[in-house]
Amino acid sequence: MFESAEIGHKVSKADYRKEEPVLRAALLEAQYRLLEHAGFPVVVLVNGVDGAGKGETVNLLNEWMDPRHVRTEAFGARLPEESDRPEMWRFWQVLPPKGHIGILFGSWYTDPILGRVMRHTKRAGFQHRLERIRHFERMLVAEGALVLKFWFHLSHKAQAKRLEKLSKDPRQSWRVTPDDWRRYRHYDEFVPVCEAALRETSTGEAPWHVIDGSDPQYRALAAGRILLDGLTRRLDGPPPALSPAAPPPVPDIDGRDVLNTLDYSRKLGRETYERRLEKLQMRLNGLTRDPRMRTRSLVVVFEGMDAAGKGSTIRRITQAMDARFYRVVPVAAPTDEERAQPDLWRFWRHVPRHGRSVIFDRSWYGRVLVERVEGFCAESDWMRAYREINDFEEQLVEGGAIVVKFWLAVTPDEQLRRFREREATPHKQFKITPDDWRNREKWPLYERAVADLVARTSTDVARWEVIPAEDKLFGRVEVMRRLVDAVERALDGQAAGAR
Amino acid sequence: MFESAEIGHKVSKADYRKEEPVLRAALLEAQYRLLEHAGFPVVVLVNGVDGAGKGETVNLLNEWMDPRHVRTEAFGARLPEESDRPEMWRFWQVLPPKGHIGILFGSWYTDPILGRVMRHTKRAGFQHRLERIRHFERMLVAEGALVLKFWFHLSHKAQAKRLEKLSKDPRQSWRVTPDDWRRYRHYDEFVPVCEAALRETSTGEAPWHVIDGSDPQYRALAAGRILLDGLTRRLDGPPPALSPAAPPPVPDIDGRDVLNTLDYSRKLGRETYERRLEKLQMRLNGLTRDPRMRTRSLVVVFEGMDAAGKGSTIRRITQAMDARFYRVVPVAAPTDEERAQPDLWRFWRHVPRHGRSVIFDRSWYGRVLVERVEGFCAESDWMRAYREINDFEEQLVEGGAIVVKFWLAVTPDEQLRRFREREATPHKQFKITPDDWRNREKWPLYERAVADLVARTSTDVARWEVIPAEDKLFGRVEVMRRLVDAVERALDGQAAGAR
Repeated sequence: MFESAEIGHKVSKADYRKEEPVLRAALLEAQYRLLEHAGFPVVVLVNGVDGAGKGETVNLLNEWMDPRHVRTEAFGARLPEESDRPEMWRFWQVLPPKGHIGILFGSWYTDPILGRVMRHTKRAGFQHRLERIRHFERMLVAEGALVLKFWFHLSHKAQAKRLEKLSKDPRQSWRVTPDDWRRYRHYDEFVPVCEAALRETSTGEAPWHVIDGSDPQYRALAAGRILLDGLTRRLDGPPPALSPAAPPPVPDIDGRDVLNTLDYSRKLGRETYERRLEKLQMRLNGLTRDPRMRTRSLVVVFEGMDAAGKGSTIRRITQAMDARFYRVVPVAAPTDEERAQPDLWRFWRHVPRHGRSVIFDRSWYGRVLVERVEGFCAESDWMRAYREINDFEEQLVEGGAIVVKFWLAVTPDEQLRRFREREATPHKQFKITPDDWRNREKWPLYERAVADLVARTSTDVARWEVIPAEDKLFGRVEVMRRLVDAVERALDGQAAGAR
Repeated sequence: MFESAEIGHKVSKADYRKEEPVLRAALLEAQYRLLEHAGFPVVVLVNGVDGAGKGETVNLLNEWMDPRHVRTEAFGARLPEESDRPEMWRFWQVLPPKGHIGILFGSWYTDPILGRVMRHTKRAGFQHRLERIRHFERMLVAEGALVLKFWFHLSHKAQAKRLEKLSKDPRQSWRVTPDDWRRYRHYDEFVPVCEAALRETSTGEAPWHVIDGSDPQYRALAAGRILLDGLTRRLDGPPPALSPAAPPPVPDIDGRDVLNTLDYSRKLGRETYERRLEKLQMRLNGLTRDPRMRTRSLVVVFEGMDAAGKGSTIRRITQAMDARFYRVVPVAAPTDEERAQPDLWRFWRHVPRHGRSVIFDRSWYGRVLVERVEGFCAESDWMRAYREINDFEEQLVEGGAIVVKFWLAVTPDEQLRRFREREATPHKQFKITPDDWRNREKWPLYERAVADLVARTSTDVARWEVIPAEDKLFGRVEVMRRLVDAVERALDGQAAGAR
């Protein structure tokens, strides 16, 4: 993998002086086309060996192009506010919007590689992280991003020479840190791990570009040309075709599904309801103040047909919580900042830190529900969403979150009754819109979507709780009971070291 | 101030049971009107004595209203990422957008009051902070916000009783912390400071509401009614009229102004330019890596007529910097998230942390330039903007930023020449739009606006550097020189303890 970057690539200064202005003008022009076009973002990853010219290249790209539309982010060790959330959170926060170029100096590869070299991560854990990265980059590409991954390489000998030369130059010596020398001594341990990482993640949609970093002129022209080439192709041509990666559809053989087989007859009397609810609210309140919650967070998702009782159920939960530590996020149409990002971006920005809770009223399932049914996105988009959602929830859980998902189920008849009631009650009229009636006509399509959603995204890490909410009182108590159980189970599992 | 909150207000449980459902229904309705109307945000501050029911009231408001559209934020000691930026930064980050209610539990009053009680702040410093708060709240109101400030009070005796009662209740004891008892012992020192704070900041546009916190029923109904009353008035009536607070206009007596008295004849030869620029870039590079920059940040602002050379000048600066530590922020039309916030919000979100630099290509001066000239905002809005801008920059500087502002000046003739050149050069055509020609016709109005802007916002803390940029080479070197000087001066002043 690295051999071709050790054969001593070289460009003379004279050639460089001739080529650089041409390349730079072309890059600037491509950047402006990108900006006007505004159809996709460009994500440039800069990784590689210390001393191989990563920093210099990043600065050079900023110099060549218009720095106003380039956002460079450097990643060191995680900051406290970053460690409180899933590993990928900090990368999501800085993804460039459509039309812009984001340069990530140090990226999602740094931690997995270091962890493996230092033996903090076992082989299986390393493989798992690489697979996650493959999924993530595939998602980026599917959402339209151009992903360019640079690896700047130096042979062990070339690295020694380079670090020494930099150290001796008073204008450059700041570039060499003790950490660089420490990693230099571990060079031989790094090589196989980096090679594995590159091999496993060099996909058709987001391949690695290994660049020999020993000659400044060569590496500058190489990086610039690869970037220009990638930009031009993508501006002139179609985005890369991705093989479909959807799970097989759930066949409908006997007409039975997760919604029409529920027992909708379950009811609770007002008195029992009040008694049980109060008890459960007390338990939930105790749990949210449990010291074990300091390293956990709580993410609760509510989905369901219109008028299924999401809002009133959420209110019963928040009553039991301290308003300082929870947020309810009602999911509405995306803002224009959100539209310039991958679909899941607008949910990542609400991921709670440890000790906090977020309740989503509708969620990242919109793509496989309303967008699927209404045709707001291509079939291939909602098909791939299932796996992206599973990845997202897995990351939440690995980052310390307890994820509980509720589908509130009512029958079509009950929905109709509630619609009519809303129309008849002055202060509830705002809750019913023509959209609600239109959605109702598509009930069978939604039912089908729900069956697929449960089949594909009810996982070990984040199970779907499908709740018959035909009787509001029963539904609320049932939600509360399962929520309390789920939190208790998660905290106890943690105590038992199961996490 | 607090006497009327010590006379023992009380509401019987029976009365409460009768009134509460009515109040709550009305609040919910008002909240939905606010949401549909979406014309203004509501900022509720919750402050007061420990044990006076602040937390309970916040929870209650969340229970009464739809928690999906209420955002509650609690503020404790500043987190590391917050201490790296001006004091008010963390509050700007959580301001509610139009149509929403933001409850701030602990607010911009907590630190000033604690600092004064603990004698970390002198009297003059305390007064200064209160004045800043008055300005800030005035700005919020002028931008449309409804600001409601609650102070929950308890007499010393009532506080003792309350803290003891809470401590003994196993379900409530978590509410009482050792800090509460410590502050309790300092009660007599707190009272005069709090009273001063409330007195000085109880303005017509954002008055304080002091509520007796000893009786739970009374304080709940009081807070609810004040909120409902505030909401209803604002929904039904006009926003409060604010007395104009503009500085007197700068009279034009002799036709001379800051732009037409510049010496536009200054020039640099290519060779001198190259030599000087390189030297200055080296100095700037050294300064950005100076260890003293670790507790400072750099904010550079570029304004100027179209085609004055902002972009190319910025590029000469960024060439000297490490791309990992600077960002260029091109200021364009606000996004819809930005439009739902006060004008300055979109700049606060880009305030750099210590050790970082941000270069603004156009800036928060838009309101007193293009918006003033084109009539995009009311006269009263741009009139008040000068002071808001000065406040903002003062806060940046107090938070550790070095603020340098450049006006790049060219003559109308030179602008015309550059426009024609752009039109004739294929790869520069995208830079010239019909807007540019339109703006050009309003040159005298812009010139007037620039005169006012310099007169009113060139301050000790953030001076305007008006640079004749008729000759591009001279302009670039002059900007670089003044920038390097300003940074050096700031760092040396810091060493001399002048900061």
